Amino acid sequence: MSKKLTSREEDYSKWYNELVVKADLAENSAVRGCMVIKPYGFAIWEKIQAELDRMFKETGHQNAYFPLFVPKSLFEAEEKNAEGFAKECAVVTHYRLQNDPDNAGKLRVDPEARLEEELVVRPTSEAIIWNTYRGWIQSYRDLPILINQWANVVRWEMRTRLFLRTAEFLWQEGHTAHATEMEAIKEAELMNNVYAAFVENFMAIPVIKGIKSDSERFAGAVETYCIEALMQDGKALQAGTSHFLGQNFAKAFDVKFTSKEGKQDYVWATSWGVSTRLMGALIMTHSDDHGLVLPPNLAPNQVVIVPIYKNEEQLNEISKLANVIIDELRSKGITIKFDDRDTLRPGAKFAQHELQGVPLRIAIGPKDLENGTVELARRDTLSKEIVAIDNLTTKVVDLMDDIQSSLYKKALDFRDSHITEVDSYDDFKLVIEEKGGFVSAHWDGTEETETRIKEETKATIRCIPLDDKVEPGVCLYSGKPSKRRVLFAKAY
Amino acid sequence: MSKKLTSREEDYSKWYNELVVKADLAENSAVRGCMVIKPYGFAIWEKIQAELDRMFKETGHQNAYFPLFVPKSLFEAEEKNAEGFAKECAVVTHYRLQNDPDNAGKLRVDPEARLEEELVVRPTSEAIIWNTYRGWIQSYRDLPILINQWANVVRWEMRTRLFLRTAEFLWQEGHTAHATEMEAIKEAELMNNVYAAFVENFMAIPVIKGIKSDSERFAGAVETYCIEALMQDGKALQAGTSHFLGQNFAKAFDVKFTSKEGKQDYVWATSWGVSTRLMGALIMTHSDDHGLVLPPNLAPNQVVIVPIYKNEEQLNEISKLANVIIDELRSKGITIKFDDRDTLRPGAKFAQHELQGVPLRIAIGPKDLENGTVELARRDTLSKEIVAIDNLTTKVVDLMDDIQSSLYKKALDFRDSHITEVDSYDDFKLVIEEKGGFVSAHWDGTEETETRIKEETKATIRCIPLDDKVEPGVCLYSGKPSKRRVLFAKAY
Repeated sequence: MSKKLTSREEDYSKWYNELVVKADLAENSAVRGCMVIKPYGFAIWEKIQAELDRMFKETGHQNAYFPLFVPKSLFEAEEKNAEGFAKECAVVTHYRLQNDPDNAGKLRVDPEARLEEELVVRPTSEAIIWNTYRGWIQSYRDLPILINQWANVVRWEMRTRLFLRTAEFLWQEGHTAHATEMEAIKEAELMNNVYAAFVENFMAIPVIKGIKSDSERFAGAVETYCIEALMQDGKALQAGTSHFLGQNFAKAFDVKFTSKEGKQDYVWATSWGVSTRLMGALIMTHSDDHGLVLPPNLAPNQVVIVPIYKNEEQLNEISKLANVIIDELRSKGITIKFDDRDTLRPGAKFAQHELQGVPLRIAIGPKDLENGTVELARRDTLSKEIVAIDNLTTKVVDLMDDIQSSLYKKALDFRDSHITEVDSYDDFKLVIEEKGGFVSAHWDGTEETETRIKEETKATIRCIPLDDKVEPGVCLYSGKPSKRRVLFAKAY
Repeated sequence: MSKKLTSREEDYSKWYNELVVKADLAENSAVRGCMVIKPYGFAIWEKIQAELDRMFKETGHQNAYFPLFVPKSLFEAEEKNAEGFAKECAVVTHYRLQNDPDNAGKLRVDPEARLEEELVVRPTSEAIIWNTYRGWIQSYRDLPILINQWANVVRWEMRTRLFLRTAEFLWQEGHTAHATEMEAIKEAELMNNVYAAFVENFMAIPVIKGIKSDSERFAGAVETYCIEALMQDGKALQAGTSHFLGQNFAKAFDVKFTSKEGKQDYVWATSWGVSTRLMGALIMTHSDDHGLVLPPNLAPNQVVIVPIYKNEEQLNEISKLANVIIDELRSKGITIKFDDRDTLRPGAKFAQHELQGVPLRIAIGPKDLENGTVELARRDTLSKEIVAIDNLTTKVVDLMDDIQSSLYKKALDFRDSHITEVDSYDDFKLVIEEKGGFVSAHWDGTEETETRIKEETKATIRCIPLDDKVEPGVCLYSGKPSKRRVLFAKAY
């Protein structure tokens, strides 16, 4: 615990990995590429889940649960989707183990227990869900279907990193069915906006809303909406995606409905998801060389009180005061913990809470009792102040708001100062290589140019922003005409 | 929707399956033995989850998440546990599909992408979790660890039934680690008591707390505590189990700690779980030939208002009144829905809400507007009454309590009248065959007798009750001495 983190300057990637493990968020498991989410990390994920779930329900969605497995024949039905995921999926081929006759005490796969049809562990659930929707939809009266699922999914990624890219991850996936194209497009846009509002207001991470280029689009989608965030090291991170799927899955799974006018048509679809990857975005947006920095909205404990005492009597006096403070703050909806562990000294407690990103620390010592004061320490600014106990509640409530908005403001300033407009390929390469961040540049709209730029600079088109700045120009790579600037960046 | 259910009398099993599907709780999927939990069914499961989660946290537990997969070498480490689950587990052997060269548009398992070590889809997580705990536990200061996980698990059951026995199911599994045997035993007992309190108070299902006989014990446990419920058809259902695991997993995964006194010892363990099987218990305890009956604590909508009108003007008047009622009831914490769909007649709405078990229906027609009344219909008793609108809120709040406790009382009466003490094997067989329910009988404590009785009557020992009625006697099968009566039953 007490060993210092590698600094971000020194090695950003190492800093990230150390922080995740030392702050007790997650760790690697015995299964290649799969992580264990530890209680402290999971408590943050539960806050993310609870707020998103509330927002989904408020916009008319219901939760349901579909099978973990997708039979191979369903998996391959939507061709592009299958192609997109076939190369990295876990396949169940057998349903039994037996004692290994050559190896006492060991088990082996029972060759007699081969499945007739292999089962793919879901990398995403469009296939199994649209196969189910066929039975649910006959008429326009059955539409829209607005369903979300909280689930684990598996993608056999070769290079994995805690939260950012793991073989198994937790996510939610919305799958909706609509009678008209327009309604489905509106749904996909709505959910991208819900994600943006959540990530900005709740996680204090500014995002750019946009759509993906052809090559970055979800396999099987007609249009992929996305929100893109910028990490402290200048790399972009896709924080959520919302797909307009057209009638692709309805056609692949033969899902038709009869309209009000009595006409038969294929159903229109969307799907949208965010995952435990958001934890990675959270860490890499706000944290510092001392450890995690949490916005109050996501902190399992928003405030911690640490008593500083030399004897039992002092501890008793401090505890009395602490309990009064705790009752008052809890009544204001603040989550607060009294850290009276007798196994650690105050300094060690300070270090732990700093490492774990508790937004506000209140220290109370014998002098404070005499003077009617406490010491407040903000995690985000690392600043301390002595304040009078009168009005402490109001002060703390205000600080929660202030920390939440300061974190957003700081991240926004950083992000905005890292969107660079360039008009030559030399400048492009220079900015990508040296400054990092988003590069706003003209692109001719072809996959060929996109691929070449990626090969030469490792930068990809993160999105075509949905702002209204549509300014024609000339592609900085090919010199061909361009309708508007798009955002390039190196990305997680 | 409108077709009547098969009656319980006629075919209990068919009644159950029809009810689950027609009430929109769940349905079978394209994957053998796996179900789709539909939004209405899932909303009930969410209520179960929320309350249990609250109770777990109140007793000091935290949530975490461990991998879906268990490498075969870990799976086989605890011998009895492995033996118990090896015969019914899904095994991942490959991590990639490829285009089938013999079959255009089809995929096949890529023979080059064989895993070095097979992965078992978790049937339960003791192995992967105890392998992880080894890294978390060095000293008594690291104990206890009190962790719960909400997860999906897979057991390749050959005969499956919606909710009761499915290849994939949702559950929670608690896994705790302790410094002393006594503390672990107390934890296992505590969680069995938490389950009992939840199932009785929240689900309105009476249970008998007990311990399992050797042959029914969880594979790898030293002692299995359980709660047993009785279904309407006289068959028992195990509603939850809590295991004292001794040091079995600590030894299998080499998890030791240094005690306060500086001694090294293996860690003591418990695990405990309930699953979506509880949905089956819920249905089979309360429901009737008209459909689902829900205790108010678990109903997604506790009250529904159905307007009865001939024209728009009447509907407007009724809606005004309904909104006043809704606001008042919501302020009392009651979930209520105004069913003003114009696509269904009142009779069809009545039938749907009856089928889906909405505890209380309020019907409002033009005559009610004139008279200042509404019609209340209780789902549990199917009784109706006209009541004055004044005091409706108090009346409804009281009814919620009354329905909740009436359902429990009714189930308790049924259960208690189906515990039959017998002292001869002839009586035993007669009761098991004709009356059903629990049979309280003396047993000599041997697995041999247990097995013979099971083979001859299909009845198993559901539990050795934890009440204090310890009365010695003579085994009704072998004539050997018996320390106390145990409960036999046919079971789900």
